Amino acid sequence: MQIALAQINYIIGNFDYNVQKILEAIRKAKKVNVDLIIFSELSVCGYPPLDLLEHRSFVEKAINCVHKIASECDEIAAIVGAPSFNPNEKGKVLYNSAYFLAESKIKSVHHKSLLPTYDIFDEYRYFEPNEEFQVADFKGKKIAITICEDLWDNPPVEYALGRSRLYTLSPMKELLKQHPDLIVNISASPFEFNKIEIKKTIFTRYAQETKLPLFYVNQVGAHTDLIFDGGSMVISPKGRIVDTLNFFQEDFKVYHFEEVVKDTLSFNFPHKDDIEQMHDALILGIKDYFAKTGLKSAILGLSGGIDSAVATVLAAKALGNEHVKVLLMPSMFSSEHSVTDAKELAERLHIEYHIVPIQPIVDSILHTLNPLFKDLPPDVTEENIQARVRGLLLMAMSNKFGHILLNTSNKSEIAVGYGTLYGDMNGGLSVLGDVYKTNVYRLAHFINRDSEIIPINIITKAPSAELRPGQKDTDSLPPYELLDEILFRYIEQQKSLDEIIADGFEPQVVQKIFRMVNSNEYKRFQTPPILKVTSKAFGQGRKMPIVARY
Amino acid sequence: MQIALAQINYIIGNFDYNVQKILEAIRKAKKVNVDLIIFSELSVCGYPPLDLLEHRSFVEKAINCVHKIASECDEIAAIVGAPSFNPNEKGKVLYNSAYFLAESKIKSVHHKSLLPTYDIFDEYRYFEPNEEFQVADFKGKKIAITICEDLWDNPPVEYALGRSRLYTLSPMKELLKQHPDLIVNISASPFEFNKIEIKKTIFTRYAQETKLPLFYVNQVGAHTDLIFDGGSMVISPKGRIVDTLNFFQEDFKVYHFEEVVKDTLSFNFPHKDDIEQMHDALILGIKDYFAKTGLKSAILGLSGGIDSAVATVLAAKALGNEHVKVLLMPSMFSSEHSVTDAKELAERLHIEYHIVPIQPIVDSILHTLNPLFKDLPPDVTEENIQARVRGLLLMAMSNKFGHILLNTSNKSEIAVGYGTLYGDMNGGLSVLGDVYKTNVYRLAHFINRDSEIIPINIITKAPSAELRPGQKDTDSLPPYELLDEILFRYIEQQKSLDEIIADGFEPQVVQKIFRMVNSNEYKRFQTPPILKVTSKAFGQGRKMPIVARY
Repeated sequence: MQIALAQINYIIGNFDYNVQKILEAIRKAKKVNVDLIIFSELSVCGYPPLDLLEHRSFVEKAINCVHKIASECDEIAAIVGAPSFNPNEKGKVLYNSAYFLAESKIKSVHHKSLLPTYDIFDEYRYFEPNEEFQVADFKGKKIAITICEDLWDNPPVEYALGRSRLYTLSPMKELLKQHPDLIVNISASPFEFNKIEIKKTIFTRYAQETKLPLFYVNQVGAHTDLIFDGGSMVISPKGRIVDTLNFFQEDFKVYHFEEVVKDTLSFNFPHKDDIEQMHDALILGIKDYFAKTGLKSAILGLSGGIDSAVATVLAAKALGNEHVKVLLMPSMFSSEHSVTDAKELAERLHIEYHIVPIQPIVDSILHTLNPLFKDLPPDVTEENIQARVRGLLLMAMSNKFGHILLNTSNKSEIAVGYGTLYGDMNGGLSVLGDVYKTNVYRLAHFINRDSEIIPINIITKAPSAELRPGQKDTDSLPPYELLDEILFRYIEQQKSLDEIIADGFEPQVVQKIFRMVNSNEYKRFQTPPILKVTSKAFGQGRKMPIVARY
Repeated sequence: MQIALAQINYIIGNFDYNVQKILEAIRKAKKVNVDLIIFSELSVCGYPPLDLLEHRSFVEKAINCVHKIASECDEIAAIVGAPSFNPNEKGKVLYNSAYFLAESKIKSVHHKSLLPTYDIFDEYRYFEPNEEFQVADFKGKKIAITICEDLWDNPPVEYALGRSRLYTLSPMKELLKQHPDLIVNISASPFEFNKIEIKKTIFTRYAQETKLPLFYVNQVGAHTDLIFDGGSMVISPKGRIVDTLNFFQEDFKVYHFEEVVKDTLSFNFPHKDDIEQMHDALILGIKDYFAKTGLKSAILGLSGGIDSAVATVLAAKALGNEHVKVLLMPSMFSSEHSVTDAKELAERLHIEYHIVPIQPIVDSILHTLNPLFKDLPPDVTEENIQARVRGLLLMAMSNKFGHILLNTSNKSEIAVGYGTLYGDMNGGLSVLGDVYKTNVYRLAHFINRDSEIIPINIITKAPSAELRPGQKDTDSLPPYELLDEILFRYIEQQKSLDEIIADGFEPQVVQKIFRMVNSNEYKRFQTPPILKVTSKAFGQGRKMPIVARY
């Protein structure tokens, strides 16, 4: 028996496109005599469809597409993902289902049991959890079909923040009662820094414990803030990873079932370190945001600092130099090197840049506000005006030429509220909003690994917002090495103030950072979508109240 | 037996404040020999605590507070709401619980079974659903303690969009097996236009069917976008509403259990029509946003149009005239009456206003951009620049003087994307973002019901953004009466394009509106929190993908 894994980049709600991609893969598989081809979770509609699932016509369209795909499954079987209606009178309207297609029809439908409802996941919002289990029979083999989280009933504790068993049910335990010959897992599992190791642990353990081969097919491609990394896997019954499909790219591969069982196959799959993964993920995130919305070009403000430099390089890699434009917008507080460093980068990247001094506009605003401000001393107001004029100019370019503004704020500054709402927080997509400042430096070094693309002065100089004379980030923030350590413990690890102090950090510093993080929820609420690359990104996956005391 | 209903305005996470309010009510109840006092859902921590629940120290604090409250329940029993830890090894970490306190200790803990996970609710994100049922015994009476959604296992179909049975379990059916003498329901049920009638239907039906008295205690007060309307109720076993507590205000009332059972009591409770409810809800929403964050004063841009006029009146009612400031910011396209109408309103309300012409700043921006724009014809770019200059000036006032900017966009324009991101979409809180334009008019008429507060010209003139010469909203939009009908069907009723056309609307108009709504998800993603007053507000309760085709 030959099994094909089809790792495809879908577009949410674009049924014509998705079905065409699925049918192309089926035809390709038929040509090489594949018996069973496997697609990823909710492949027909793309994941996550969010509240489109609440629209009956959307679900009906998806199911019609499944029928259409089934009609082409004559000499081949396929497993595709799509929602299905819950036939029971009680419970949620839908199931998250895997359709097993063979003999040109839907042979059986298998529903997801474990519905992730944490972080960015909200599947119980739409789906009823499945409680009935049935293997699929095909050519004398019994297939245990599981959907993503179904195999995550007992992930490693370090991943699950101390509670690895979020569910009372174990779907595989139920399916094992029917003595399956293989495990299939169709997934839409978004990228997180270091999550690949967790996945490997889970899948190899399951294969080993059950002594069954495991075929895992993941979605690839980005949808707004979520980046699906692909990396589909085949595991032998010994728990050895036989092969891994491409990360961050579509892929299609065929395996002999018997050879996987016998563990005789050997493939080479390259290992990428964490910062390279993050780098590739962010590029895919930018690329798909544009490609899937039909947009072509991006604009960024290039300040001479490291964040905008790294974001610009990533954008140029994702979209091509010719599709990235930058504005250099010096004010009276900008240092000479800010402009020269930024120019140098733009020239090295061969991207179009314009120098637009903001001082005349700032002066005109201050003049207008003078009767209201009278002789009050300058404060953060005047700093924010500079940031907002820059934001306004970038949006004007966006409106006039159709470039989409990319936001360059990093996770450290978003965390502590070190940014101006409607100013440097503007943008259609935040490139680095889930990357701590210390990792922005690592990205810069990775980008420069073979040759100096980012001028070294941008990397070595002390970070500054340059909104008042001689300003440095460290005037109001602890050094980033320290800040990021504390933020990681609070945001990703959800440690309490006392726990972080017990880790050896200075109480006053930790208190100050907690206050800054907690009091800036209102700003983060209006932040653009942030490309998620960690286990806890700001945005949909972290819902903290704005009006509250904590 | 005497039962007190304590309807309190809590602050999320402010344990000291909440416990103090609860203890005050307990002491007050003791003085009048109350036997049992009932507080609302998650009263100890405030609802909704969102991801604060993921922080163990937060839950521990809440449970400590319950113990503290219990220690004061010597001659009285109390039911308070707080999270509790799930003692089982598997399943979510927490329960959403009602603590029954008596004899100075926690006598029993009752967990919520039905966890709303739709619209703005995401309780399965945090809580394990309860499956074990136990009435509380107190003074020879058996109390069936339910938490909010527990009684919503079968709401009227029109409320539930065709699926009234979202749950497979009926907690009351289980509790009835133990022959309770009364039903208690502790809730945190947010206000929606017309939802009060649904609640009455559900509660009176339950009382009637079970022949039991029902005591319902709701939270009152707003948290960011959610407005809890109070309106706690006592229902006789005949299914008659004996009494209703205040809407939109704290309240405390004592009832003789036996008199409720005999249905001999009679209270007067005023009825407010839908637009008055909405009016009162919005005022509470503004008031608590400021009060609970310690903020004092608001600033708005007053354009001479109806939206900013209504929002300003509501703000003045919520915060007091002296705490509301407005800017009038005419451009070269502003009509004479825009300024005079706005001035007239500000003077009638006795609020501070300043006239700040924006043309010099706009000119300075266009001058700066001239080398880039060259001789390209004016388009939406120049319109957005005006809106963004106004947004910038309002934020400068906000920064300099600490006023919070209130956003005045209405639901109709937010729906179709008729607004400028980082311009008129700015603000800390959106006052009218869940109010369709036609209801903004109804609010204006309600405000003017006794005397002309809003100058009549503001209400009667044709709506215009005044961003280009002679511009009218109807240049690019259908008349609001028509637009709002279509939007209501799409957004609240989730009807498909075909269904709306079948309702008798012109296909081209419906298609155009669908396109406008669907293509503006990216703008709504960055909208301030919107005071929710309908069954489907933009914001957390409506999660549509940005990158998608539909």
